[in-house]
Amino acid sequence: MSASLNAFPGFVCRLDGIRRVDEALESAARAHLDDLTKPRGSLGRLEDIAARLFMISGGHAPLCVEPSLVIVASGDHGVAEEGISAFPQEVTGQMLRNILEGGAGISVLSRLNGMEMLAVDAGGIHDALSEAQYPKLRNLRLGRGTANLARTCAMSPEQCVRALVYGMDTVRYAAEQGVRLVATGEMGIGNTTPATALFCALYGLEPEHVVGPGTGLNSSGVRHKARVIRQALELHRNVVADRDVLGVAAALGGYEIMVLAGVVLGAAESRIPVLVDGFISTSAYAVAHALCPAVADYAFLAHASAEPGYAAIMKHMGRTPLLGLGFRLGEGTGCAAAFPLLRAASAIYNEMATFSGADVTGTERQPVE
Amino acid sequence: MSASLNAFPGFVCRLDGIRRVDEALESAARAHLDDLTKPRGSLGRLEDIAARLFMISGGHAPLCVEPSLVIVASGDHGVAEEGISAFPQEVTGQMLRNILEGGAGISVLSRLNGMEMLAVDAGGIHDALSEAQYPKLRNLRLGRGTANLARTCAMSPEQCVRALVYGMDTVRYAAEQGVRLVATGEMGIGNTTPATALFCALYGLEPEHVVGPGTGLNSSGVRHKARVIRQALELHRNVVADRDVLGVAAALGGYEIMVLAGVVLGAAESRIPVLVDGFISTSAYAVAHALCPAVADYAFLAHASAEPGYAAIMKHMGRTPLLGLGFRLGEGTGCAAAFPLLRAASAIYNEMATFSGADVTGTERQPVE
Repeated sequence: MSASLNAFPGFVCRLDGIRRVDEALESAARAHLDDLTKPRGSLGRLEDIAARLFMISGGHAPLCVEPSLVIVASGDHGVAEEGISAFPQEVTGQMLRNILEGGAGISVLSRLNGMEMLAVDAGGIHDALSEAQYPKLRNLRLGRGTANLARTCAMSPEQCVRALVYGMDTVRYAAEQGVRLVATGEMGIGNTTPATALFCALYGLEPEHVVGPGTGLNSSGVRHKARVIRQALELHRNVVADRDVLGVAAALGGYEIMVLAGVVLGAAESRIPVLVDGFISTSAYAVAHALCPAVADYAFLAHASAEPGYAAIMKHMGRTPLLGLGFRLGEGTGCAAAFPLLRAASAIYNEMATFSGADVTGTERQPVE
Repeated sequence: MSASLNAFPGFVCRLDGIRRVDEALESAARAHLDDLTKPRGSLGRLEDIAARLFMISGGHAPLCVEPSLVIVASGDHGVAEEGISAFPQEVTGQMLRNILEGGAGISVLSRLNGMEMLAVDAGGIHDALSEAQYPKLRNLRLGRGTANLARTCAMSPEQCVRALVYGMDTVRYAAEQGVRLVATGEMGIGNTTPATALFCALYGLEPEHVVGPGTGLNSSGVRHKARVIRQALELHRNVVADRDVLGVAAALGGYEIMVLAGVVLGAAESRIPVLVDGFISTSAYAVAHALCPAVADYAFLAHASAEPGYAAIMKHMGRTPLLGLGFRLGEGTGCAAAFPLLRAASAIYNEMATFSGADVTGTERQPVE
């Protein structure tokens, strides 16, 4: 486990309290699914989702994923000064406002699908927006952007743990209020750079194999970004070599990414499912998973990112996302697009008739040649 | 064009009236999508869907896919006597009742997603259910199952055209009542056999490369099914060689498949989008497309079937379905699972803020190396 964690015994204690699901519950879920009026397994991944939701619930039916909450964390990145993004940093704050005012992609899609939304300003370079003006805003603001990860540590371990605990507490509070599913979203100009650096550090991948255009870099911009990430990995090689997860997260991460890693940890702690969005959110999941492997039991990866390294990352994780629609927006838009599938899985489990109940002949037979 | 069609001038006249969309409208749709507060193209296929919906609408915004209607056609198949299905034929009627009583997969998923449903009994071996008892039922009942396509023609060209026109009329009436999107679903024990035969006949594929387990055949059952289909293709080789589409459809099709081919034609005729379900529905789409290529402009393929030949069929069609979740149930369940994506595409197009409207810096720039 991560050496830097020794300084945070309260946080470690919470991590230690996170439990895996009881895999033995799966057989009861499968038996119920097999008794529904359809050929066995014919609803494919919807049945896998339902079985997983049953295990997460601790074996309680009916399954339920509502009310749901998308937590959109935003932050700025010191590494933006290296010129690794197609958009200027001022866009982070502008988009945070747009998200809160209902005009962003996640605003539209969460509203459409009946998901609640909370926007956490984890640390933008802009002036703070007013929580009084925007009831869905939470100002954490760990700094005016992180430090430049290619020159120094992006943040201190203390800041990193604060972000993680904030994410966990946000989910704990939401779960206490009745929320049954959380989803991750983010906004932060330049944040494919820390996300890529985290994947490379955690999974031993080469930056040139993972790095992509983000929101719209050209090929020379992509090469430049890979060099910046290589420089960062070189600078922080000691924490990487030591497998010091908290050290890696503080050196290479972003405030919003760490809040979302906390959201993933918090979902597992509160034993509710968490939908994980695309490239950046998946890096947050990777950090959470490195801190506490049990989170894998509670997480659904919503959609395949269009970033080139995503396939290699999925191979490392041994997972397949639910959707593959070429999204590269973030904000939690992939989660909002995938959420109806989790709702559908619950409905199938709860509402379909059984063979005996509907008087349908369920016995399969095999023709004889 | 199909020789057999000459006997049906009224039907041919309707086919001739079906028009492609105006592709020139795409640039206006793309200009609007590019002005929304997101990096260009970053909502991937959701943007393609929105642009397509705009073209189908004739260039009218806001986009709208509701109210929507799933048309579930059912029927039985004489070829079942060859032992090509894992379930007995009585299940078709039992499942039709289950669909109408709300317990089937499509009943649950259409209700969940606010889609209306209509079940057309195109010709089952069971006694007719009562339309008075089931307001969502329509009794077409072209026969008590088709004839055995491996021994004779499944139906007459007259029956085939009646099914096609019924599908078209159903959509025309629904569109007149305000329906803005239709979706296809089916139920019919044994109907992967006619569907596979149609794909092979229309696309020159080998049965052994396309045939699969359907609702649950074992490997010896699959080999037997391939032999039955090969026998049928041999028997009906003349209409296949003549590219007589109506002749092929009558010889190898199913009542429910032809109703759904009519639904696809009807959507294009009424200029509304049609969501096409999995393997069987896609064979109905293939027939509609062979009769009238313009239907391609109005159709969305909902999900990749788990049947082994599906990938080869998509290659022939040059299309990629929206979802890949391993469904092999039919009934329109893939359409119901994909429908929220079309609703999301419409909402994005209609409701997202523009760069200028939200005061977000939209100019992308490229970093200099």
